[in-house]
Amino acid sequence: MAAAVPPPLPSAAPITLPEPTPPGHTLFTRIRLATIDDVPNIHKLIHQKAVFEGLSHLCQATADSLAATLFPPNPPSPFASFTIFLLELSTSPFSPTQNPHFTPLIKSLHLDLPIDDPEWETFRSNANDSNGDVTVGGFVLFFPNYSTFIAKPGFYIEDMFLRECYRRKGLGKRLLSAVAVQAAKMGYGRVEWAAPEGNVNAFEFFEQMGAKILPEWKICRLTGEALQAYAHVNL
Amino acid sequence: MAAAVPPPLPSAAPITLPEPTPPGHTLFTRIRLATIDDVPNIHKLIHQKAVFEGLSHLCQATADSLAATLFPPNPPSPFASFTIFLLELSTSPFSPTQNPHFTPLIKSLHLDLPIDDPEWETFRSNANDSNGDVTVGGFVLFFPNYSTFIAKPGFYIEDMFLRECYRRKGLGKRLLSAVAVQAAKMGYGRVEWAAPEGNVNAFEFFEQMGAKILPEWKICRLTGEALQAYAHVNL
Repeated sequence: MAAAVPPPLPSAAPITLPEPTPPGHTLFTRIRLATIDDVPNIHKLIHQKAVFEGLSHLCQATADSLAATLFPPNPPSPFASFTIFLLELSTSPFSPTQNPHFTPLIKSLHLDLPIDDPEWETFRSNANDSNGDVTVGGFVLFFPNYSTFIAKPGFYIEDMFLRECYRRKGLGKRLLSAVAVQAAKMGYGRVEWAAPEGNVNAFEFFEQMGAKILPEWKICRLTGEALQAYAHVNL
Repeated sequence: MAAAVPPPLPSAAPITLPEPTPPGHTLFTRIRLATIDDVPNIHKLIHQKAVFEGLSHLCQATADSLAATLFPPNPPSPFASFTIFLLELSTSPFSPTQNPHFTPLIKSLHLDLPIDDPEWETFRSNANDSNGDVTVGGFVLFFPNYSTFIAKPGFYIEDMFLRECYRRKGLGKRLLSAVAVQAAKMGYGRVEWAAPEGNVNAFEFFEQMGAKILPEWKICRLTGEALQAYAHVNL
């Protein structure tokens, strides 16, 4: 006779949770190599950076001069000379695309509140490979440098800029990291940049990124008429 | 009858001075583009600079790594990437030579006392176009940089070094000026470099050259393991 075995407890029904939906809003981001078609947007970003820094009187860049110097005929390979990564934002997902030199970096950005971008149209991207609207939110310009002590190239970041409404969302870190990732993948030895010392938040951010600050080094610059005078020096 | 005219004064015999001979000793100098054949001397100069700065433990450059990174296969045009000017010294005049990219700068250097160069042989140049001995006395390494505000390339000087016995003779000024002259001829907008702030004499010299010092800018550097870590970051 079977021993009195208590009936099994009813098994706990699995609780089916809905797929987690990020609260708020989603924007899609892409970092890609700029082309000559992006010059009008790059020009506007550079001008906006100059205004933001109160230096618009020093900004002589035109779309034509940028195109001629950044995208010359017979351009060198990307990363071998002046190189720009653009940050784009879209209301719809970007399709993965291939580029022989740099596969665009695609990610989604979850936000509690939608971003009000009053210049979405002004900075509309030339990219036509998204289902939705695409705007350009910022850029980083860099080029190779060299260290004789480690006998390796590196990258020097000359400029980085995000439009006002896209700041404080981790996008600057993504742009800067994109350059560092590229340098690391290429076996390069250093990524360097310079920043004015007043901005404490920026330096905290740079140190969080792993950068060391070189407090004792001063930049020296020969420019304008002082440089032009050398055209007539007979060495 | 002729009026009594006083006889003309005897004309002053012209005083024949010998051609001015500079007192002391003469060395002949040349600044030229370095080639891959110069790598052994460049390597020794870089190592000597590291020792001079007390940083030889940080100097990882080898002749092979320098050759691979400074003179790669299919090199870009001179001045489009990492570029080295070498300073050579000779006991005999250099013959003028042509180079499609850069005509060597030849000059003589008059000295009160001969220079005792204990390493003349160690740094013997590979150049065989002089009648006399040629040694390498120093170098400057530079590469293009870019300013978005002026939309022009410039040059960044990464390193300059003169062997001890050739300092304080105007040769550093000649090397630095050679880069500035090249930049001015190419229509470039800036020549920049960085120096540690302790060296007051150096900064006076830079200002005499026409450079401005940018005291508020700090250099940030991502290198070593902190940079390598980015190879594994999934953006």
